[in-house]
Amino acid sequence: MVGDQLKHKTPEQLRLAAREGHFNETTSGLAPGFVQCNLVIIPQHYASDFADFCRRNPKPCPLLAVSPMAGDVSLPELGPDIDVRTDISRYRRWENGVLVEEPTNLLNHWCSDHVAFALGCSFSFEEALLADGLEIRNISEGVNVPMFRTNLPCFSAGPFAGNLVVSMRPMTPKDAIRAIQICTRFPAVHGAPIHFGDPAQIGIKNLQLPDFGDAVSIKEGEVPLFWACGVTPQVALENAKLPVAFTHAPGHMLVSDKPNTGLAIL
Amino acid sequence: MVGDQLKHKTPEQLRLAAREGHFNETTSGLAPGFVQCNLVIIPQHYASDFADFCRRNPKPCPLLAVSPMAGDVSLPELGPDIDVRTDISRYRRWENGVLVEEPTNLLNHWCSDHVAFALGCSFSFEEALLADGLEIRNISEGVNVPMFRTNLPCFSAGPFAGNLVVSMRPMTPKDAIRAIQICTRFPAVHGAPIHFGDPAQIGIKNLQLPDFGDAVSIKEGEVPLFWACGVTPQVALENAKLPVAFTHAPGHMLVSDKPNTGLAIL
Repeated sequence: MVGDQLKHKTPEQLRLAAREGHFNETTSGLAPGFVQCNLVIIPQHYASDFADFCRRNPKPCPLLAVSPMAGDVSLPELGPDIDVRTDISRYRRWENGVLVEEPTNLLNHWCSDHVAFALGCSFSFEEALLADGLEIRNISEGVNVPMFRTNLPCFSAGPFAGNLVVSMRPMTPKDAIRAIQICTRFPAVHGAPIHFGDPAQIGIKNLQLPDFGDAVSIKEGEVPLFWACGVTPQVALENAKLPVAFTHAPGHMLVSDKPNTGLAIL
Repeated sequence: MVGDQLKHKTPEQLRLAAREGHFNETTSGLAPGFVQCNLVIIPQHYASDFADFCRRNPKPCPLLAVSPMAGDVSLPELGPDIDVRTDISRYRRWENGVLVEEPTNLLNHWCSDHVAFALGCSFSFEEALLADGLEIRNISEGVNVPMFRTNLPCFSAGPFAGNLVVSMRPMTPKDAIRAIQICTRFPAVHGAPIHFGDPAQIGIKNLQLPDFGDAVSIKEGEVPLFWACGVTPQVALENAKLPVAFTHAPGHMLVSDKPNTGLAIL
């Protein structure tokens, strides 16, 4: 299934298509208006520490939903029919903090002690920025947003620790002020930027060499704006070296039935 | 009346002291918690154009109160007993756009066709920033905030026209983001900054040579933040060259009974 066929699918139709193996694409730009989520699946033994890591680091790890109980494949907070084993178009399987494979479902991997966590994703606030007429460079240039490891440590919880990862979008100062206002309304999807301007102040050496994603151009008169990024919990997960863990593959998000506007606190 | 004696006065007591000639000081730091206002008094003939100038330029000219009718010396929106001819500790009298004198009351100047306008002032949002733990450099250094003429034109209305004047406060990017959030809650006192970073982008050549007020130090790692400033309407008033006009003298504000927190939109 490609192109126009996908554009008009509802979140539920996209999840079903992924479940049935008909949909292997990334979800950027699909089901506009609906919340897409980062997914983390870990053994129950580590679940309370991971939940605490999210609570202590809400900007990079805004927790939107957790499995009702270990082994339960549903996430009723995000949609009535979700099956976290199948509804994402591409997963990542990790062992001892190392990426092992990228399966298209977890049917052969799911255990009764697995717990799923869904976290907010920048797609939601990007939609709000675009709706306000702001330009988002990674979208204009058709690439993944550039992401950088910073020297800002997260608060740790159990085995989960690491530095904050940020995404970067360049804007004029005027647009940056507007973006700060808009994103402040969306704390559940990373909220306001955490820094702007000099990248060295947060330990970033070269904006043209992102640690994840793609470089974007920065025009004369623009400043880089840095948002806490959902790759942060993935880095914490790598650092924790759990015997087994699963996440979505980058760009292959869990598409929920929750409207983006519902995340606005005002 | 000086020092500690003043610090504990209510807004009404300060206005009465000015009215009775016992108080000639600036009002910075006095009656904490209460809204202080810029004041503009002009002949009725120009009142509707000036009101329109304010409406079209709400960031530099946030209108909080207007005389109930021409010749009425009260401003009941700001306090039950206000007399705009006497309740400010120092005024400015202008003729044809030129400053003529700085009287301590307008009893000999007031006419039945005069209309008073009270506009929000940065003291209100500075209080909110301080309450949040942010440093305000002009306050730390005990000087007036530095203000600059920009190359950004205001929308004109009748004879009222001119470029935006901004005040500048340096902050770290992290504090600047917080300041943008806090000030967004206070649109009636200039609201969020209109620019940060490179002063040349808004036509400012040298941050150490303000057009009004005093220079402040900018530390390593800080960026200048620029707010729309209440000197803007005074510049528009000078440009309009009205036969007669009155304003408060810089720093000698009208102290109202309105709490600053009441200006927060959320």
